[in-house]
Amino acid sequence: MKKIVVFGSSGKSSIYLVEYLIKCIKTHGISLHFCDRDTSKIKAKYQASSIEFTDLDIHKNKQRGAIIEGADIVVSMLPAFLHPILAEDCLNFNTHFITASYVSKQMKEWQDQVAEKGLVFMNEIGVDPGLDHMSALRVIDWVKEQGGKITRFETFTGGLLSPESDNNPLHYKFTWNPKYVVIAGSSGAVKFLQQGKEKYIPYHKLFRRTELIEIDNYGMFEAYANRDSLTYIDLYGLPDVQTMYRGTFRRPGFGKLWDVFVQLGVTDDHFVIEHSDQLTFREFINSFLVYHPTDSVELKLMHYLKIDHDSEIMDKLRWLGIFENTPIPLKKATPAGILQYILEQKLKLEENDKDMIVMWHKFMYELNGKSYDRESALVVLGQDQQYTAMAKTVGLPLAIFVKHLIEGRHDNLKGVLIPSDKQVYLPILEELETMGIHFKEKYIT
Amino acid sequence: MKKIVVFGSSGKSSIYLVEYLIKCIKTHGISLHFCDRDTSKIKAKYQASSIEFTDLDIHKNKQRGAIIEGADIVVSMLPAFLHPILAEDCLNFNTHFITASYVSKQMKEWQDQVAEKGLVFMNEIGVDPGLDHMSALRVIDWVKEQGGKITRFETFTGGLLSPESDNNPLHYKFTWNPKYVVIAGSSGAVKFLQQGKEKYIPYHKLFRRTELIEIDNYGMFEAYANRDSLTYIDLYGLPDVQTMYRGTFRRPGFGKLWDVFVQLGVTDDHFVIEHSDQLTFREFINSFLVYHPTDSVELKLMHYLKIDHDSEIMDKLRWLGIFENTPIPLKKATPAGILQYILEQKLKLEENDKDMIVMWHKFMYELNGKSYDRESALVVLGQDQQYTAMAKTVGLPLAIFVKHLIEGRHDNLKGVLIPSDKQVYLPILEELETMGIHFKEKYIT
Repeated sequence: MKKIVVFGSSGKSSIYLVEYLIKCIKTHGISLHFCDRDTSKIKAKYQASSIEFTDLDIHKNKQRGAIIEGADIVVSMLPAFLHPILAEDCLNFNTHFITASYVSKQMKEWQDQVAEKGLVFMNEIGVDPGLDHMSALRVIDWVKEQGGKITRFETFTGGLLSPESDNNPLHYKFTWNPKYVVIAGSSGAVKFLQQGKEKYIPYHKLFRRTELIEIDNYGMFEAYANRDSLTYIDLYGLPDVQTMYRGTFRRPGFGKLWDVFVQLGVTDDHFVIEHSDQLTFREFINSFLVYHPTDSVELKLMHYLKIDHDSEIMDKLRWLGIFENTPIPLKKATPAGILQYILEQKLKLEENDKDMIVMWHKFMYELNGKSYDRESALVVLGQDQQYTAMAKTVGLPLAIFVKHLIEGRHDNLKGVLIPSDKQVYLPILEELETMGIHFKEKYIT
Repeated sequence: MKKIVVFGSSGKSSIYLVEYLIKCIKTHGISLHFCDRDTSKIKAKYQASSIEFTDLDIHKNKQRGAIIEGADIVVSMLPAFLHPILAEDCLNFNTHFITASYVSKQMKEWQDQVAEKGLVFMNEIGVDPGLDHMSALRVIDWVKEQGGKITRFETFTGGLLSPESDNNPLHYKFTWNPKYVVIAGSSGAVKFLQQGKEKYIPYHKLFRRTELIEIDNYGMFEAYANRDSLTYIDLYGLPDVQTMYRGTFRRPGFGKLWDVFVQLGVTDDHFVIEHSDQLTFREFINSFLVYHPTDSVELKLMHYLKIDHDSEIMDKLRWLGIFENTPIPLKKATPAGILQYILEQKLKLEENDKDMIVMWHKFMYELNGKSYDRESALVVLGQDQQYTAMAKTVGLPLAIFVKHLIEGRHDNLKGVLIPSDKQVYLPILEELETMGIHFKEKYIT
């Protein structure tokens, strides 16, 4: 009887994974162990003889080690920075390890040890990264098998609002960890390839270098570039590609609004405002503007950033409440932390809000002397605040891979991996299609 | 006979220090030991029986340790990142240690050990930091002694060109380490206090938030803020101060020009351009601009940064040669490294160029019921490329302090220090005045 341990099983993105694995108890005779800081809710909902529940502080080495020692597969839905702790235990106790996070530098260094032990450390097998790799490679590998040559690849993903819940001027609410939304892009210059030339965008220009994409039935989206697209040229095996561009989707207008925060400097997460709890929203914004004895914060901001007083941006900023004299209740907070708090007042999901995951690829390739321009689009809508599109698209690829591992389909796999192998991604994509995660393809002529 | 060791004695900023200490051989009966990677030139110039010269790799622990073991005082003119190695030896061998560098975090941690051993580790005793502290505190301490209250303090320093050598459109050449000029300000948001409010400026706005200052007989200067002025409120003991602002001087127009580089992203020192040696200056600039099949690099840049085609900025950019198809000879260089190379083609000092150090303070204070507005300005001109204003203002305060230490004036001092003590800075400032380093004071009425 195979034993699967899930860390972070009570998290917002875990429900589809958890329920899929529970179904596998009957079909595959497995046993499950759900661990999190507080598992009481999922215990009340799913209690069964073949499921163990443990409330756990991940930093308690003995308890954590004992749990991992008894497992065949460890799945982590915890934040990425906690993965090294779990991965190290898995290495010591000969356990497979599966996450939706990016392969970290440290993870890469374990490659040889993991392979030597015949273990599988599968990463980047959620939605983004995950589904993006798998759905892109299905087309890319097919083109290559046919003897074709990919010349251009662009891919964008966004965690957004289902059209019925899209009811604010930003067309955005926090459907994902707000902290990561606020600091998105701030870790360094963005890099990509366009028409054979490497291009770089500094953070303070990122939200002004957007492009617009239309997706059938869902309207227009705005895309800004992600960190380093250049590494994907090798990763996807595309030596002839002339354009390689990965990015994030928002609704049109978001970039121009967000750029105001970037320009002010209020997305900075690297320093602390000593007396943040003595400031109001308005004073916080003012601390990034020049001093003037009488000019208003609004006027100073408009003049500084060259914004018209009757522009949509000013309407949006006013609506967000950044000029209000509302006290900030956070002590010694960073600008990014304060901005997050201000935005959360208006951009929190309401009870009946539904989310939406949008993914889009463009492939241009040459095959048998002809040029092709092919697009592939996925839209997944959330059902409610529990069964979200995010949880579905992150959790199901992960869960299906776990099942395939149990079934012994991947006994030849070993090492630190991402789902770039056809034997891995193809059966996952096929099963996802039966569950409503379906890419629509079309050719542009 | 006291023995003084100088590391980095052949460096560009060492000549005044070296010659001052050589004079002390006769007057104070000391012996000297000059160490650097290559001391052949200074050996040829200064050879004498009481001076030792050693060509040394600073990382050779045994040789370095033996030198420091035999010394009473170690002076370092090496780059700041090498100071911990020397400081650690000084701690082990009970030697005083003097530098012009900022007190590092690591240096602070040694405070107790240094004090326990009765040693003096004096830092920030060059020009900036150094002379700025000393000359500011002379006024600040005087006001406090009189029972007054400082309400505003601003201070700016610049390493610039002597008016007779100011012959290019930027009114700037590299009189200091070009690398630090290129990345100046990029390490994080700037912080200062203005009219009782803390203010923050992100890097990408720093060169647009300048102010203009006039200095008698030398015309206008443009100032941009330095990293964290807030820490100086405690350091200078100014609990009532409402404005605390430290910055750097350039000539007017520099900020607007430099902002072009910041906006493009070409001052980034955090990533490497893989094939930098296959690019020209023009292609390098183009890699930070949008792709277009026919538009010129110039047009794309003007449109991106909203610059008029007939503006002074475009003239300056063209003069600098950034649009030329000149090959970049640097392998795997960062954008900052490439920008430095491009600028060095035009901004290198020519043979007969002379430099200039400008320092300016503004003090506003209340004393006996009256308000005062007092300014203090220092201008030092270089004689040639050896006897520079930079070397003079960095080296002499350091050298004079070493002399005072030998004379036993500071037997009560111990610990990790900066020259904030009146008994330290006053006699140094007095001696400097006899050497042409003289602040002109005036009251604004």
